Amino acid sequence: MSFMAPRLDAEIIAIGTELLIGGRSDLNSLFLADELGRLGIAVRFKSVVGDERQDIVTAIHTAVKRAQVIVMTGGLGPTVDDCTREAVAYATGRRLGRRKEALEGMTARLSQWGRIPNRAQLRQAMIPSGATVLKNPIGSAPGFCLAWKKAMIVSLPGVPREMEEMMQQEVVPLLRAASESSGRPQRAPIVRQVFHTFGLPEADVDATLKGLITHEVPVDLGLLASPMGVLVSLTTKANQSASEKNRDLLQRLAHDVRSRLGDWLFAEGRETMEEVVGRELTKRGLILAVAESCTGGLIGHRLTQVAGSSAYMDRGAVCYSNRAKTEMLGVSAELIVRRGAVSKEVAASMARGIRERANVSVGLSVTGIAGPGGGTETKPVGLVYVGLDDGTDRSIVREFRFHGDRNVIKQRSSQAALDLLRRWLLDKEAK
Amino acid sequence: MSFMAPRLDAEIIAIGTELLIGGRSDLNSLFLADELGRLGIAVRFKSVVGDERQDIVTAIHTAVKRAQVIVMTGGLGPTVDDCTREAVAYATGRRLGRRKEALEGMTARLSQWGRIPNRAQLRQAMIPSGATVLKNPIGSAPGFCLAWKKAMIVSLPGVPREMEEMMQQEVVPLLRAASESSGRPQRAPIVRQVFHTFGLPEADVDATLKGLITHEVPVDLGLLASPMGVLVSLTTKANQSASEKNRDLLQRLAHDVRSRLGDWLFAEGRETMEEVVGRELTKRGLILAVAESCTGGLIGHRLTQVAGSSAYMDRGAVCYSNRAKTEMLGVSAELIVRRGAVSKEVAASMARGIRERANVSVGLSVTGIAGPGGGTETKPVGLVYVGLDDGTDRSIVREFRFHGDRNVIKQRSSQAALDLLRRWLLDKEAK
Repeated sequence: MSFMAPRLDAEIIAIGTELLIGGRSDLNSLFLADELGRLGIAVRFKSVVGDERQDIVTAIHTAVKRAQVIVMTGGLGPTVDDCTREAVAYATGRRLGRRKEALEGMTARLSQWGRIPNRAQLRQAMIPSGATVLKNPIGSAPGFCLAWKKAMIVSLPGVPREMEEMMQQEVVPLLRAASESSGRPQRAPIVRQVFHTFGLPEADVDATLKGLITHEVPVDLGLLASPMGVLVSLTTKANQSASEKNRDLLQRLAHDVRSRLGDWLFAEGRETMEEVVGRELTKRGLILAVAESCTGGLIGHRLTQVAGSSAYMDRGAVCYSNRAKTEMLGVSAELIVRRGAVSKEVAASMARGIRERANVSVGLSVTGIAGPGGGTETKPVGLVYVGLDDGTDRSIVREFRFHGDRNVIKQRSSQAALDLLRRWLLDKEAK
Repeated sequence: MSFMAPRLDAEIIAIGTELLIGGRSDLNSLFLADELGRLGIAVRFKSVVGDERQDIVTAIHTAVKRAQVIVMTGGLGPTVDDCTREAVAYATGRRLGRRKEALEGMTARLSQWGRIPNRAQLRQAMIPSGATVLKNPIGSAPGFCLAWKKAMIVSLPGVPREMEEMMQQEVVPLLRAASESSGRPQRAPIVRQVFHTFGLPEADVDATLKGLITHEVPVDLGLLASPMGVLVSLTTKANQSASEKNRDLLQRLAHDVRSRLGDWLFAEGRETMEEVVGRELTKRGLILAVAESCTGGLIGHRLTQVAGSSAYMDRGAVCYSNRAKTEMLGVSAELIVRRGAVSKEVAASMARGIRERANVSVGLSVTGIAGPGGGTETKPVGLVYVGLDDGTDRSIVREFRFHGDRNVIKQRSSQAALDLLRRWLLDKEAK
C-alpha cells in the first residue's frame, strides 16, 4: 500500500458535537495511542469536530496533510446526525453505496437481538467505494478503511467497546500487513512507561529527575500534575527503526527513575493506589476496615473498584454526623466537644473504633473540612487528619492542609489515607 | 479590530503531550464553550497537539483558516517543554521580547509567595511583539492575545483555575469590546439547555422526542448516552443576530421536552442527581442514612459531594462482608444464608436496619453483584437490588439487571438508588 511513507504519524479525529463541549474523560484516545504506539506510530494530533459534514471534511483534509494514519471515531450511527460516512465520501471524492458485507454483518447482529434493520439502520451499510468494510462484532454499525493521498483513513464507531474490539481485530492486522509488505525495516514500538507519585510537588519531582535525560537520548520525559499526585512518563521517540537498544535504554532510565523517586513512587503503568494497597494487604493476609468523615465513602468506593476486594475489605463507616462517630465507632462525645470532630485525637479514635468493632487487622480513618463552609481561623478548609490503627498501641495520625475545591480536597484526602496505609504496609515488610 | 468577520467561529487548541494521550476529563473545553457561547461564538473545532513547536505552528495555521477566535491553552510554563510562546511568534512572524508588564505581574505574584523569579521563570515574560499581555491573578505565567489574519489568537495557561480567571477577567471584556466597536448588530448568545434523564434507553428517549425539532427551527437537538443516563440538549444555532425570538422559541421547546420526558427527567443544566435528592430532602426536613454493599461507598461519596450535605446525610454503612451486614445493620445471618446476600429480602432488611440504627427518616440500601466474579446462573453479574425504608412498613425494593464492567455496574447502581429516593421524595409531595 502506498501510505507507508518513511515517517508514519497518526491523527485521531473524534466526531460529535457533545465531545466538542467536553467535560468527559476521553478514554478512546488513550486506547488508540497505545495500540498505534505498539506499531511504532505516534499520535501527533487529535481533532474534535461536531456533527457537521463540512467540518468533518475540513478535518479530514487537514489531517491528510500531516498524518499518514487517520483514525476517526464516531458519527456512524443510524440517526441523521451521523454523517461521517457522507463526509469521508465527499472529502475523498468517492461514491457512497450500500455494501453487501456491511449489510450482512449488520443484519446478522440485529437478528441475534431478534430484530430486523429498520430504514434508519440501513444507512449504516452505506460505505464509500473502494473502502474495506470493518466488521463490528458488538454493535450494528460497521466501520471502514480506505487509502487516499498517502494516508490510510479508518472510520470506527465512537462507542469505546466497539471501537476497541474493531481496532484490535481489524485495523491493527491491516496496519501490520501494510507495514510488512512495504519492505521497509520494521519500526520499533513506541514504549511508554508511566510512574505515579504522591506527596511531592511537581517542582520537586522535576528537580529530583533533573539531568536524567540528556539531549541525545531518544526518550521524552513527561510530567503531569493532578490532585492525585504527579505522573512521570518516559516515552521512546517515534519512527525509530526496530532495535533492542531503545528498550535497554528505557529499562536503564526506568531503573534510575525508580531509585530517584524512592518511596514517593506508589505505582507504575495502569496500576492504581487502591490496587497496590489491595495487593499488599492480600500478601500479608490482613483485613481492613475504614472510617470516613469528610471523604463521605470515597475511600470505600475506591477500594471496592478492585475486583476481588471483598477478600480484604470488610466494611466502612461513613460518619457524617458527630452522633454517628459516637454510635458507630465509639468515639467519645466529650472528646469531640473538647478537641473538635476534626482533630488528631478524633482521627485516632475513629481508626481504633472501626478496627475494634469490625475485629479486623487494621483500621483507617479520615476526618477533615472539605469546605466550602465550616472552616475557622485555627481549623481552615482543607485541614485533614488521617489515622491508622493496628491494635499495637502505635497508632499513626498525620495532618494535611490541602487547597482546592470540595472535590479536590476529598480526592486528595482519600489518596493521602491510602498512601499512609501503603507506607505502613511496606514498612511492615521491611521489618 | 479586523477580526470581527460577520461569521464568528472559535477553535480551541489544547497543548500538551499528555493531553494527546487522553484519559482525563477535559473541563477546560466545557468552560470555554460556555463563555464563548454567551458572546454568540460557537466552538467548531478543537485541536490537541503535543509539546512540539512545529506541531503547534501547524495547528495555528490550520485554525486561522477556519476560525476567527482561537483560544490556546497550555505550554506557558517555565520549562523547556513549554513552547507556546515561541510557536505563536514563529507562526505569526513576530519577534519574542521580554515585556515589562509581563515581568512585573510575575514578579509581584512570586514575591507574594516570598520568592524571586529564577532564570527559567523569566522565560514566561517573553511575549510576541504587538500582543496584549493578559494578567494572571493566580499563577506566575502571563497570557497574551494578538490579532493576526482576521483572527484573534488568545494564549492562556492550561491550569483550569488560572485559565478560567483570565478568560473571564481579561479575554471576555476584550472580545465584547471588539464586537461593540465593530458596529455590527450584536450576536445572540448561544443558549444551550441540558436535560438529564435516567432509566430510559437512548432509542426510547429519541422516540419520545421525535418530531420536536423541524428542519426550519434554528435549534439543534443532541442526545448523549452514558452509564448515568441519557443527556438531552437543545442549542440555538450560532451566528444569529440578537433577538428575543430565539430565546422564546427555546423556552417553548424546553417546556415541550419536559412534558414529553415526564419523570424520567431528573435534573436540568449543571444540577446533579445528588443535588436534586439533597434539595428535596432539605425541603421536607428529612434525614437520610445509607447502607451499601456492591457500591462500596459510592452513594455516600456522591451525596457528600454537595456542599452542606451534612444537614441531611447522617451516616453510611459499607457492608462488604456478610458479617458486617449482620453486625452493622442487624440483617439476620439466617436470612442471608436462606435468600443470599444479593436478594430482595436482604435489600429490604438493610434499608430498615440502617434507618432504625441511625434513627433517621429514611434508609436507602443497595446489594448486588458488581463482577467480574461472583455471578451464577440464577444470580448473574449485574443483578442489583435497591431498597428504601421509611418506617411505614411500605418499604420499596426494586430489581435491576445491569450490563457493563465493574465500574459501570457500580455507577449505574448508585444512580438507580438515588433515583428511587428521588421518585419516593416526589411522590410524597404529590400526596
